[in-house]
Amino acid sequence: MKKLLTVLTLTLTGVLSANAGTWELSCSGCHNGSLAPTKTTLLKKYHSKREFLAAVRKATEVGKMPSSLPFESAADELYGGKTAETNTTSKATTSSDEYSKYKRFFKPLPALPKIPADNPLTPEKVKLGKMLYYDPRLSRSKLISCNTCHNLSLGGDDNQKSSIGHRWRTGGRNAPTTLNSGFLRVQFWDGRAPTLEEQAKGPLQAHVEMNSTPKIVVRRLKEIPEYVELFKKAFPGEKDPVTFENVVKAIAAFERTLNTPNSPFQRYLLGDDSALTKEQKEGMKLFVKYGCIACHNGPVLSDGQFHKFKWNKDLGRYRVTKNPKDKYMFRTPQLLNVAVTAPYFHDGSVNSLEEAVKIMARKELGKEISNEDAKKIADFLRSLTGEVPLEARVLPQLPGNNPE
Amino acid sequence: MKKLLTVLTLTLTGVLSANAGTWELSCSGCHNGSLAPTKTTLLKKYHSKREFLAAVRKATEVGKMPSSLPFESAADELYGGKTAETNTTSKATTSSDEYSKYKRFFKPLPALPKIPADNPLTPEKVKLGKMLYYDPRLSRSKLISCNTCHNLSLGGDDNQKSSIGHRWRTGGRNAPTTLNSGFLRVQFWDGRAPTLEEQAKGPLQAHVEMNSTPKIVVRRLKEIPEYVELFKKAFPGEKDPVTFENVVKAIAAFERTLNTPNSPFQRYLLGDDSALTKEQKEGMKLFVKYGCIACHNGPVLSDGQFHKFKWNKDLGRYRVTKNPKDKYMFRTPQLLNVAVTAPYFHDGSVNSLEEAVKIMARKELGKEISNEDAKKIADFLRSLTGEVPLEARVLPQLPGNNPE
Repeated sequence: MKKLLTVLTLTLTGVLSANAGTWELSCSGCHNGSLAPTKTTLLKKYHSKREFLAAVRKATEVGKMPSSLPFESAADELYGGKTAETNTTSKATTSSDEYSKYKRFFKPLPALPKIPADNPLTPEKVKLGKMLYYDPRLSRSKLISCNTCHNLSLGGDDNQKSSIGHRWRTGGRNAPTTLNSGFLRVQFWDGRAPTLEEQAKGPLQAHVEMNSTPKIVVRRLKEIPEYVELFKKAFPGEKDPVTFENVVKAIAAFERTLNTPNSPFQRYLLGDDSALTKEQKEGMKLFVKYGCIACHNGPVLSDGQFHKFKWNKDLGRYRVTKNPKDKYMFRTPQLLNVAVTAPYFHDGSVNSLEEAVKIMARKELGKEISNEDAKKIADFLRSLTGEVPLEARVLPQLPGNNPE
Repeated sequence: MKKLLTVLTLTLTGVLSANAGTWELSCSGCHNGSLAPTKTTLLKKYHSKREFLAAVRKATEVGKMPSSLPFESAADELYGGKTAETNTTSKATTSSDEYSKYKRFFKPLPALPKIPADNPLTPEKVKLGKMLYYDPRLSRSKLISCNTCHNLSLGGDDNQKSSIGHRWRTGGRNAPTTLNSGFLRVQFWDGRAPTLEEQAKGPLQAHVEMNSTPKIVVRRLKEIPEYVELFKKAFPGEKDPVTFENVVKAIAAFERTLNTPNSPFQRYLLGDDSALTKEQKEGMKLFVKYGCIACHNGPVLSDGQFHKFKWNKDLGRYRVTKNPKDKYMFRTPQLLNVAVTAPYFHDGSVNSLEEAVKIMARKELGKEISNEDAKKIADFLRSLTGEVPLEARVLPQLPGNNPE
């Protein structure tokens, strides 16, 4: 009990011991009394490690808690067993960097996300997908391409509050980046598309975006012999490969290559202690300590789950499910390249990264954080800007010409 | 006189002798009785070679005739002296290709156009210019970049009749390609800008295009420290280098690198007889024979002069000069990459290259040409599609983020 009190005191005063355990490093962001059961109430509610872990499993399954957190370690800490402290200490002493123990809350970005079995990645398909991504002729007006709103010069989005589409119409939500989007569990702010393939069908047809139809897209592509050949190569063995389904498959395949390695933070995670500044390391520590990590975790710093963010009139996932529980629920956005994808939030209403950090802390974690800390966290987030692959940025020379 | 009659007969029947002279190959396209003095009337008007050449010089100075034609050779032919026939024959026999004698009417594309003394080309300036060319934040809406309407994926233009700009407004004229535009003597369909620098000021500010102002452009760029640094490097020694004048200088510098070598026709001109098909060589011959070459000459197949094309209500250059003589006058468009820059003419009203060829022949040369010949000329024109430099097509990763 004395130990427990010490831990709580440390957390509350904002000082993190060098031997801090899972609770302080990972759980206390949410489990601080205002938003979730505290350590004390948890121990009263679940009488054994087994009960606790069963409850955690259920909570992760319904999306109440992120599945990627170190629950076993937290259970050890709460109910006894191998202590997290011991673990942490042994890890910390293996590195000269005092911040290195925070690394275990993060995951390096793999080269590629999971490739779906029904849409294998081939060079031919990626080449075709890239051409389609850049081709404005997929839109009704022939003006708007995927790259118009997901501009690979501008962090894979468009710097707009909400994108400007067909006939200068605007939608209500901010365009998320296509960079690293293959790592997201679901697509769109409300998660209404389970895959990049399904996602791509949206903007192509949306009245306020490209305003096209599968018929227009297929007809225009079939008129261009070079495209017909490229579809044959990308979808070998298919009798009539120029289909809307294959268009979105090719675009999704290309998008799965839009991953941004080599950010300072990636280099830091992979062992280059000098890749982050002292400020950024402090920011990383605060990111863990305040509990941002609770939702923003995994290789792209999104748990892929839905969380309540009552911000404006947008009802979020409720608009998809009509389930009252989903009111104001939004999928956690990824944070890679966040420094180059302002403005922020689903309505693009906030321009400053520091301000976005403070609002998130207040609304999602129930914490007021200082300008100084917000600045450090924002500096850490700026270390997440990676390199868009060169090959993806080479504009294709698109075939065909004669407009209808 | 007997010889003259023979030549005229050959021209009129459309059969070109293997020993055809300058007149048949070059002059007879215009000087066929309907649009310009014939050989007979010229000999009556100018009594000596000297008089003839003086008149020609005057005509080229005021833009009535292209300056790049072989006038000396024509004078020899008209007034005696070294005959063009001899010349042509000797050239023809040095090559195994029966079409090679037509090559002398064309010029290979130099690596770079003339660089103005007040805007030297430096790697730093071209790099900056490329970023500005691709940066939509120069437009009021932050949606439209130079590349929106001059898309380097689509032949340096946008496949639209007339471009869609700010708030979905459209102008009245078709966007010309930026490719090889540094070789043009004047810019815009009506020649209202003498340089690429002056040209760039137009779309940036036009109400129906980017709708920006020098003030907006400079303010936004100054807000991005990386851009300020790049301007310092591109314009060394200047105290306050982020100016609108320097913005257009950098864009123009980049545009002067947008040249497209390696087209089949360029390779043919440089000695690869196999680079053109038989059809395309026939088309080249017809291009000369029908007189297209009279206006479409020089390295980008534009004489840079103004010619009357009464096509719709657009008064052309008259709108700039208010001189009644300039009514319906338009600058000859270049023809490099014409196959990928449909639709055609200043109003983008024609989609088919064959149709455009037939209309030009009818309106500008007073000739009805067969579908077969139009197809051959269009095939020749398709051999003018070159390669957009790779470096120009690599999308920059643009600095800065926070929108206003």
